[in-house]
Amino acid sequence: MSKPVLIVGGGPAGLAAAHSLATVGKPCVLVEKEDRLGGAPILSGYAKLVPTDEWAKDAIGGMVTRVENEDNVRIETGTKVTKFDGTPGNFTAMLSNGESLQAEAAVLCSGFTHFDSVNKPEWGFGTFPDVVTTTQVEQMISSGKGVRCPSDGRMPKRVAILLCVGSRDRQIGREWCSKICCTVSSNLAMEIREELPDCHVYIYYMDIRTYGLYETKYYWRSQEEFKVKYIKARIAEVTSDGEHLIVKGEDTLVKRPITIPFDMVVHAIGMDPNVDNPEIAETFGIELESNGFLDVAHNYGTMGQTSRPGVFVAGAATGPETIDDSIAQGHAAAMAVLSGNKEAIGRTA
Amino acid sequence: MSKPVLIVGGGPAGLAAAHSLATVGKPCVLVEKEDRLGGAPILSGYAKLVPTDEWAKDAIGGMVTRVENEDNVRIETGTKVTKFDGTPGNFTAMLSNGESLQAEAAVLCSGFTHFDSVNKPEWGFGTFPDVVTTTQVEQMISSGKGVRCPSDGRMPKRVAILLCVGSRDRQIGREWCSKICCTVSSNLAMEIREELPDCHVYIYYMDIRTYGLYETKYYWRSQEEFKVKYIKARIAEVTSDGEHLIVKGEDTLVKRPITIPFDMVVHAIGMDPNVDNPEIAETFGIELESNGFLDVAHNYGTMGQTSRPGVFVAGAATGPETIDDSIAQGHAAAMAVLSGNKEAIGRTA
Repeated sequence: MSKPVLIVGGGPAGLAAAHSLATVGKPCVLVEKEDRLGGAPILSGYAKLVPTDEWAKDAIGGMVTRVENEDNVRIETGTKVTKFDGTPGNFTAMLSNGESLQAEAAVLCSGFTHFDSVNKPEWGFGTFPDVVTTTQVEQMISSGKGVRCPSDGRMPKRVAILLCVGSRDRQIGREWCSKICCTVSSNLAMEIREELPDCHVYIYYMDIRTYGLYETKYYWRSQEEFKVKYIKARIAEVTSDGEHLIVKGEDTLVKRPITIPFDMVVHAIGMDPNVDNPEIAETFGIELESNGFLDVAHNYGTMGQTSRPGVFVAGAATGPETIDDSIAQGHAAAMAVLSGNKEAIGRTA
Repeated sequence: MSKPVLIVGGGPAGLAAAHSLATVGKPCVLVEKEDRLGGAPILSGYAKLVPTDEWAKDAIGGMVTRVENEDNVRIETGTKVTKFDGTPGNFTAMLSNGESLQAEAAVLCSGFTHFDSVNKPEWGFGTFPDVVTTTQVEQMISSGKGVRCPSDGRMPKRVAILLCVGSRDRQIGREWCSKICCTVSSNLAMEIREELPDCHVYIYYMDIRTYGLYETKYYWRSQEEFKVKYIKARIAEVTSDGEHLIVKGEDTLVKRPITIPFDMVVHAIGMDPNVDNPEIAETFGIELESNGFLDVAHNYGTMGQTSRPGVFVAGAATGPETIDDSIAQGHAAAMAVLSGNKEAIGRTA
């Protein structure tokens, strides 16, 4: 029997890689540090996904079930890889459960870490209970409890979503754009308006990046069908007058200060490099790019190569990424492993 | 011997799909309507690619060479598919060269059509010779001739790049965003500044969509290292005073009219659905989405399924797409074909 492929991380990319390898008869060991599979969409309780409108628990939950039912996939949750030696086709991995494992190749699908809004204190998170994150609003929706102000459980009448919290912000060492927050926030605004038709929803933005076909499906639709309001603004601070949250900033289109009261303020939090990336890079002997994501070689041949032959990477481990693109990259990395049997493994990345 | 996989289109997605299937021993027939492989990056003579800075002729040219050297890939250029009947695992394709072909599955990688700037006449293309497209500037650079004004061959001292030409423009029936033009234009602006250090380059934009890690590598770098200037503006028209081109519009940040003279004006042209899409949809019995791209099912299982089982799709055929994502999707679609042998073919898309 051939050696298995080691897949690190059980989110969308890892599930895609494991499923596609398994279906062509390739054994895999899927190692996940958390105690269940699904990655951010499941562990953080996302609501309806972009761009399908399917619930995360159905869409990504379905991917989990498929992988759990695959005879060719062995799943090790609550487990990390602590050591990884050898050469393509002939690796040995040590797992945190003490097991030593032979592997033909590795696919790192270790994802990202959500930005922690306490690192942007002037925008009120951690100070005011009704300043929440997009993830918390997703949870309110996916749990069926609905969008409510945490302070007293009331339905908000006015909600502000602040984009680029922990993204495009050099002051806090995060220059990158998190790619999907604009579209996710447009989607979330529509979900809020659907549940609470009397609630006014404002989105504060620098640039609206609903790229590609998201432009019509999210940006235009949210304005025209759902009357979501977009304000191009630079936010100064989020305070409180005792009764309402107050968002202060400068409307950069009309160049004047704007101060607007809200019941709830939502931080559209960005995607940080996985906090474990330095450890992952050390364990697998691979490079990080300048922001701390796993470096990926775009060599127009096999996709998803890292700086070490036989070690591949897919999804948000490489930088902010959408769920769909993470899944495509997971399948592509699986394909690279299969192709690699013939020629790519050992090629300089 | 197993039936081959039919791949339609020899651009980045199709080359990726063909290469990865061939390396795992799966025979393919790659049908390309043009007389050579490579798709837009080769046929339109792109210069250095985002995000690797490799020349298109090397990067995509290398993919072409690899596929041409694959024994498992039969290439039919100057050829179209005229009929496609049958069921998954058992299709029959008619080619325009009269050949009838058995195929196990099809992967449509038929790409896009560049927006034709004559459809935006008020912006001067077709009227003034020094109004050109991003594709023409790519060709000036990749040919080694350098960026020159077509009217008299002089080096331009002032260049304006207008974003969203044929994108985000409801007036001309193109609501979608073309996803990569912002980043490509930032890159092109740096290439112009590199060749012509005394040339001032301005980019007129609605929103700057250098998403993900492109933010630092293109948007910030172009401003800080290359002094490219960005103007948020609504363009009214491009005229001429006899000596210079005149770009008239409204600076939407300061809310006042701006009229600036340039030597060259560059249209950052968008990605239209392939003009052949209605014919392709008819031939293959698949659906188009509302804008006219090939509709793709995001079903969180096998990626790249169309509305017809056994017919897959990848790359810019599905909507505006980057080269890297097209390649990932090509590999993913190849993986879907392989997985499909086991279970996915026949599943409802």
